[in-house]
Amino acid sequence: MKISRIDHLGIAVQSIDEVLPYFENVLGLKCYAVEEVADQKVKTAFMKVGEVKLELLEPTCEDSPIAKFMANGGKGVHHVAFAVEDGVANAIAEVDSKGIRLIDKAPRRGAENMMIAFLHPKSTAGVLTELCEPAK
Amino acid sequence: MKISRIDHLGIAVQSIDEVLPYFENVLGLKCYAVEEVADQKVKTAFMKVGEVKLELLEPTCEDSPIAKFMANGGKGVHHVAFAVEDGVANAIAEVDSKGIRLIDKAPRRGAENMMIAFLHPKSTAGVLTELCEPAK
Repeated sequence: MKISRIDHLGIAVQSIDEVLPYFENVLGLKCYAVEEVADQKVKTAFMKVGEVKLELLEPTCEDSPIAKFMANGGKGVHHVAFAVEDGVANAIAEVDSKGIRLIDKAPRRGAENMMIAFLHPKSTAGVLTELCEPAK
Repeated sequence: MKISRIDHLGIAVQSIDEVLPYFENVLGLKCYAVEEVADQKVKTAFMKVGEVKLELLEPTCEDSPIAKFMANGGKGVHHVAFAVEDGVANAIAEVDSKGIRLIDKAPRRGAENMMIAFLHPKSTAGVLTELCEPAK
């Protein structure tokens, strides 16, 4: 598996509207897209810092994975996404063969027209980890 | 304040030796430095992915901030560090003037010969945030 860079950090927030002024007016970043991902029950807001995106994740209902993460005391960085160069399906097969626990056994579609798959934090040093690449 | 990129992600781990095989043999990253930061009571291990470093943080004693973070249920990404271009002291003054709560009121020395300062997660969308630049 070839990882070229961190694609984005997913950050769990109660309200994008409440925290966006911090990211824009204090850190000086700029939100360039807001998108709802119905499948994941989240509203997302994207900013770029260097080659990495910050993806704010606001739950759209109580049984959203992000709502559950925060209800269990989770805050801040929810996941780290690595850009893979040789296909998410290939990457999944490789990490599976190395005994890593998968959340997604096949690539699925995420925000920003990306194909994504999550690895289980039990296998990844406690960091919920996404592998991703642009959809073809 | 001008932020050019994410300098590093600090990742809390119980044992660098236990998790390094995942980062090196599964993700294909390479640890290029191990350093103890006595001030912070941590042992650190650094890897690079694109323009961002991953800094594994292993507590060296029970009253290490990282040991406390994990004892309180924290896991995975402990902090996000942004590289500032116009000085950490200037950046602190600016964010302070905007009402952001500071952990460090003046820059101090961190790992890798960097000057650093932390902002309080209560002011930063729940993300423990570091501002940093190379020491002069």
